[in-house]
Amino acid sequence: MAVSSARGMRDFTPRDKERRDLVMTQIRETYLRHGFEEIETPALEDSEALHSGLGGDNEKLSFQVLKRGLEAADLHAATSTKDLSDLGLRFDLTVPLARFYASHHPELPPVFRSFHQGPVWRAERPQKGRYRQFVQCDIDILGESSTLAEIEVMLATADALDRLGLAGYTFRVNDRRLLRELLHAAGIPETEHQDALITLDKLDKIGPDGVLKELGDRLSAGWHERVIANVVQAEGHAPDADYIAQVMGNSAVATEVATELMAWVNQVQAIRGSADIVFDPTLVRGMGYYTGSIVEISHPGLGISVGGGGRYDGMIGRFLGTDVPAFGISLGFERLLEVLPEESLHHTNRVALLYQREDSLDHLASVKKQLVDTGHTVRLVPKAKNMRPVFERLVGDGFSRVAEVTKGVVDAEALSWRELGEASAT
Amino acid sequence: MAVSSARGMRDFTPRDKERRDLVMTQIRETYLRHGFEEIETPALEDSEALHSGLGGDNEKLSFQVLKRGLEAADLHAATSTKDLSDLGLRFDLTVPLARFYASHHPELPPVFRSFHQGPVWRAERPQKGRYRQFVQCDIDILGESSTLAEIEVMLATADALDRLGLAGYTFRVNDRRLLRELLHAAGIPETEHQDALITLDKLDKIGPDGVLKELGDRLSAGWHERVIANVVQAEGHAPDADYIAQVMGNSAVATEVATELMAWVNQVQAIRGSADIVFDPTLVRGMGYYTGSIVEISHPGLGISVGGGGRYDGMIGRFLGTDVPAFGISLGFERLLEVLPEESLHHTNRVALLYQREDSLDHLASVKKQLVDTGHTVRLVPKAKNMRPVFERLVGDGFSRVAEVTKGVVDAEALSWRELGEASAT
Repeated sequence: MAVSSARGMRDFTPRDKERRDLVMTQIRETYLRHGFEEIETPALEDSEALHSGLGGDNEKLSFQVLKRGLEAADLHAATSTKDLSDLGLRFDLTVPLARFYASHHPELPPVFRSFHQGPVWRAERPQKGRYRQFVQCDIDILGESSTLAEIEVMLATADALDRLGLAGYTFRVNDRRLLRELLHAAGIPETEHQDALITLDKLDKIGPDGVLKELGDRLSAGWHERVIANVVQAEGHAPDADYIAQVMGNSAVATEVATELMAWVNQVQAIRGSADIVFDPTLVRGMGYYTGSIVEISHPGLGISVGGGGRYDGMIGRFLGTDVPAFGISLGFERLLEVLPEESLHHTNRVALLYQREDSLDHLASVKKQLVDTGHTVRLVPKAKNMRPVFERLVGDGFSRVAEVTKGVVDAEALSWRELGEASAT
Repeated sequence: MAVSSARGMRDFTPRDKERRDLVMTQIRETYLRHGFEEIETPALEDSEALHSGLGGDNEKLSFQVLKRGLEAADLHAATSTKDLSDLGLRFDLTVPLARFYASHHPELPPVFRSFHQGPVWRAERPQKGRYRQFVQCDIDILGESSTLAEIEVMLATADALDRLGLAGYTFRVNDRRLLRELLHAAGIPETEHQDALITLDKLDKIGPDGVLKELGDRLSAGWHERVIANVVQAEGHAPDADYIAQVMGNSAVATEVATELMAWVNQVQAIRGSADIVFDPTLVRGMGYYTGSIVEISHPGLGISVGGGGRYDGMIGRFLGTDVPAFGISLGFERLLEVLPEESLHHTNRVALLYQREDSLDHLASVKKQLVDTGHTVRLVPKAKNMRPVFERLVGDGFSRVAEVTKGVVDAEALSWRELGEASAT
């Protein structure tokens, strides 16, 4: 029988699992202290909710679940898999959050700070660092239209990353409204903005010439000189409202948005006492639902981002019927695990009891229980001919002491402890 | 658009989620201290592994996932849904554990104590207290053939239930080998034992006459007098090896097994200093894979059990090719939540900051951050016309203090705190 996990899915052995839990606990504790409240939504959602057009390309990657009790005749009558499937596994946490909020908003506070984490599933081609089940970790503020939402979410996210010991990350920020002003200045009609944003998003990969080629004759004359050269030049520039407004279309709206953007950016930097937020004129973020400020967290250790998000004021309304302002940032939990330093686990209260399998040790379980009751983590380990790998495993699992339980030992206080470094050397 | 969760699936609002996390944390901490190590397996398993015959009736309840990229022609060529599905959502944690162990045993210690918890999915008809996604919580010892496995698992389970404050539960125990001796004594051939066990399992529901009727002419003459009357009489009897052996077939094997059973039962009771284990001659446990001791945890507050398990020495071998002894107990997490007392949450470090939405409060986020940095959980709450529901919500969410941030307040130390009981009265 097949003994490996399904393609693109991972098992976590105890050491992996302990590290994952430790990192998630640190994130959770930080977010809860910042006033976010944890919710949980089910893995399966109705296909109607999942395929509402809000999930972008990810909708195509969703795992669809078969209706129950289908007969051969049902299969033959079907014209597409849609006829056979009523449920799907969630491919992100944003669509389920919007659906959750629409369902539960009467029970929730008017300004609701959501912490929502858990696995999501995407039928992507598995490759190094890309899995078909992976954990997302989102915070969102729903019901706050002012930039207080941006400020709270940014401060909480930075605190979580700092607590995890992630060094050298940078927040790159932009605003969808500035991008629209830029495209407007370039003469691109509103109906083509979404396509043009997708092209602009590729500036890193295909360069200014590639972008200009893709945008082609949709550009009005002189756009290159007036805008894209400025945009390229602005990358990494110390952010300043006037400069941003000038680069991003140089309009009254651009001035207003750039002023608002720099106000919250400066507040976050002042409160944090840091200067780790840069303006990125080509930051677009893929999803269609963003309406205002957008953020991406880049890390020198990864070519890709460790998280990102933005304002999506129209999305909740798709489920609720009434628009609710929303801003959130999602941390890429799996990517964080790749770049975080591995802490060595060593716990003074983790102890192992050795015993001889053939001995009748009536009191072995009792001695263990005495140690558990006094706050120890206790593992019973049968003696082996070669103890070296046994001790190495214990050290790797964070155990610090070992004692042997022999016949007649009934009291944990009578045990002779050896430090594991010492024990493994003998 | 649909705004409720999918049929039979639940959302958890923050108060639900906090309680669930608290209960799971207490279980986890207890199990880890008892030397169990947490693993995680993916939600989806290959259909081949899920439908290996080890999952009993639950296999029929599994949600099947459609293959990707199916065309209409594939649907029309299919003779059953099996042709269209290669993956399924796990319906329990035992089949995934066996598959995991077969996959990872070289990395695991020779005696491996697994703690494995997470959601499972079953396409059952939803009803009160029965959901299509629910959490299971299992501990298992793999690689230990002696009753040390029973003793360690029972002690850890009892500790977890005690820590949760569950009062009045009872362990009911039996052994599949005793049941086989009983059926043998009743003249039922080995090939019909599995069917006969299913019938015996219904004694509670259909009574002795119902059981006798279902067993029918498979019974040898006089079986009723010789055995079932004893069995009924033995229920709730103080367990004693001789008495158990006599009731359960009165053979040499029955004596041997009953002696072993009472030895570990007595050891667990002695170490715990309690007498909460009873012998139940009609305890069968549904799954076909049990080979030895079986356990169920009953609670007066529930007609059904809050957990159970047993020894399944043949199952791992189905995946690994080599038999590995195994004993485990699964806690019914959702049922536990139903019977556990609701603790009221009240946290002295949970504080709320009130503010007037129209005020320009440059320092609001800074004051919040100062409190977060000094160990508080802080929620920003906009003032409302009617503050009573606002305060009630805060009290319900475990907040203990509230202060108002007005213009000009820049320092958290300058805040005037009010206790929430006091504040909500004004």
